[in-house]
Amino acid sequence: MKTVSGGVTAAKGFLAAGLNCRIKFKKKDLALIYSEVPAVACGVFTQNKVQAAPVTVTRAYLRNHRAQAIIANSGNANCCTGIQGIKDAQSVAVATAKILGLAKNQVLVASTGIIGKRLPVDRIKQKLDILAAGLSREGQKDAAYAILTTDTQPKQVAVKIKCGGREITLGGMAKGAGMIAPHMATMLAFITTDALIDGLRLQRALAQAVEHSFNLITIDGDMSTNDMALVLANGLAGNQPLKQKEYAQFQSALRYVCLELAKMIVKDAEGAKKFVRIRVEGAKSLVQAQKVAFKIANSPLVKTAICGENPNWGRVAASVGSADQDVSQEKLAIYLGPLKVMHRGAAVKADHQKLNSLFKAAEIDIRVNLGLGEFSQCVFTCDLTEKYVKINAEY
Amino acid sequence: MKTVSGGVTAAKGFLAAGLNCRIKFKKKDLALIYSEVPAVACGVFTQNKVQAAPVTVTRAYLRNHRAQAIIANSGNANCCTGIQGIKDAQSVAVATAKILGLAKNQVLVASTGIIGKRLPVDRIKQKLDILAAGLSREGQKDAAYAILTTDTQPKQVAVKIKCGGREITLGGMAKGAGMIAPHMATMLAFITTDALIDGLRLQRALAQAVEHSFNLITIDGDMSTNDMALVLANGLAGNQPLKQKEYAQFQSALRYVCLELAKMIVKDAEGAKKFVRIRVEGAKSLVQAQKVAFKIANSPLVKTAICGENPNWGRVAASVGSADQDVSQEKLAIYLGPLKVMHRGAAVKADHQKLNSLFKAAEIDIRVNLGLGEFSQCVFTCDLTEKYVKINAEY
Repeated sequence: MKTVSGGVTAAKGFLAAGLNCRIKFKKKDLALIYSEVPAVACGVFTQNKVQAAPVTVTRAYLRNHRAQAIIANSGNANCCTGIQGIKDAQSVAVATAKILGLAKNQVLVASTGIIGKRLPVDRIKQKLDILAAGLSREGQKDAAYAILTTDTQPKQVAVKIKCGGREITLGGMAKGAGMIAPHMATMLAFITTDALIDGLRLQRALAQAVEHSFNLITIDGDMSTNDMALVLANGLAGNQPLKQKEYAQFQSALRYVCLELAKMIVKDAEGAKKFVRIRVEGAKSLVQAQKVAFKIANSPLVKTAICGENPNWGRVAASVGSADQDVSQEKLAIYLGPLKVMHRGAAVKADHQKLNSLFKAAEIDIRVNLGLGEFSQCVFTCDLTEKYVKINAEY
Repeated sequence: MKTVSGGVTAAKGFLAAGLNCRIKFKKKDLALIYSEVPAVACGVFTQNKVQAAPVTVTRAYLRNHRAQAIIANSGNANCCTGIQGIKDAQSVAVATAKILGLAKNQVLVASTGIIGKRLPVDRIKQKLDILAAGLSREGQKDAAYAILTTDTQPKQVAVKIKCGGREITLGGMAKGAGMIAPHMATMLAFITTDALIDGLRLQRALAQAVEHSFNLITIDGDMSTNDMALVLANGLAGNQPLKQKEYAQFQSALRYVCLELAKMIVKDAEGAKKFVRIRVEGAKSLVQAQKVAFKIANSPLVKTAICGENPNWGRVAASVGSADQDVSQEKLAIYLGPLKVMHRGAAVKADHQKLNSLFKAAEIDIRVNLGLGEFSQCVFTCDLTEKYVKINAEY
């Protein structure tokens, strides 16, 4: 597997475009991804019980696992907008399909932004002509910008693998920022590939990849109403059907693409200065490892300590104990980077200077051993900064 | 019931004192509460699986429901300190008991502050003489200051009730600040009363009062290792045994004292500018109402919106949907103060000016109706401010 440039247009037969249609004042806010031939399509969606209209609409369109384009806007979530919101999302899909010469359910819709305001459908429709005319391989950059909200940078990745006798390319783009928590967040991720693969296997591969990437990150523990990860596979690589080994290769590449995008989301989280890996080992089950890891990762006290470059592992211990899991203080060990700071529930003398310098780094590793079993899980998060508060107080 | 001054020495036969013993640089850090006669004593403790030494020691001392004094320090939590921590807590109890002429298990110990550092027992012991000599009715002020950490104000309340043929007084003090979440937090609450009541009923009354006060507040969703609420009842009011009606009166007064202290904790939360009531109605069960209410109350996005005086109810809706409860978007209603902003899952036109002015107030009411049943719960929280991050990054 090798990484290549090109994001969502790295794979054969994909074009993209992005522009400003005045949902936002000046920044790009409308993105289009297009496959030159019909593609197999799958999606994974937010598990929030309050779901935005584009989630409902796109989920329905995906029933037959076919699509050829994705139209996505930022600046307005089209959420809590009732029946009107559904009609608006459908209307954007229909208008886009018409311009591209497709059936309406061949265009998937996605939105991110403020909740509770009606989507300015007319502004979007007015620009669809120009948007479609601008479709190109280079358009991936504009598209990657157009889906951002409070992100500071576009997030793109692409890889090539040899698989099934041909070279297969997978590429993706994502937006993150805040409201990122397990089970998807204010997160949009669009992945394209020229692999030839059937809908059921693609769905399985995507679900697994999301489980091991986007569902392992948390920024503020909040879960959004609009998240989706979509993948289009247009088959233009002309590979043989993917058998067990080749499917595993494809699956692994898809997981890599998703994980890289997930890490970019954490690194560009609202106000974040630090990237934090939290690994919980010695758990009785994977679920236990994951619950404890997320309890630590979501603790405002842990996250503010990291912001202050303060190796205050006592807050990690307190988080572990409050995770509502059957853990035992007497078996607990905590490591900051390579340094052990707690053994069997009690403080271990550690080199203060080394601890302090570990916490000055941009990436921080916290490892907890529960001493109960063989399961482990690693999750990714960031620090909680004054800037996060400022951004979200003013948004 | 009428409120009176005097905090923990308002009730007959209670004295208190507080001073600096150099755990902290200058601020008072050691408090003593003393009953002139043996008292019935009960406690409720943190449910964190990682528990500080004073929690373990005080819980053991309380087995016979008798005690006559409480010694509490701030600046050091004596947590994650292993066997040495237990010995240190016991040693403080023993030394205090000796000076007061009591058996060692008649002195309850409590600590709050940084985790993982050994308690400076010698500094405490050096000052016990002066502390005990300074016991007085006026000493409640110094004691209330000595248990504070990042609190900005002491928290005291006292009430008198006519009950069982006599006047009974209940008074309390508490500390809060951060790490406040259901099931106790970095919270110490000490309550005294001259009521004559047996240990089992006192324990029941305390557990109920805590459930309806300290367990309904959240500041950052973090749960501490050191929390305890202790009550001493010395019987000096000389009341008749409390029968059903009188017990209910006493219970209600105790709940009032706990709730007032709990609200003071929220109002003085780290960096907080706003006091927020979150009421969830129309739930299928009390548990559901409480889970949804706490999900909203712990959402960083909701809390930062309140900090920014931004009536962004979309974040409330997103929190409700992510509470892992079987709620239905189509039945959801949301009110900010008296104004309805969401009806059956969709936005309602509301007066923007009125909404904005509601969010400029120091106290904010958010009400959610799930439309599913008859249960409701109200919890209390505060906003998440840049100052909270600053305080906890630097602590």
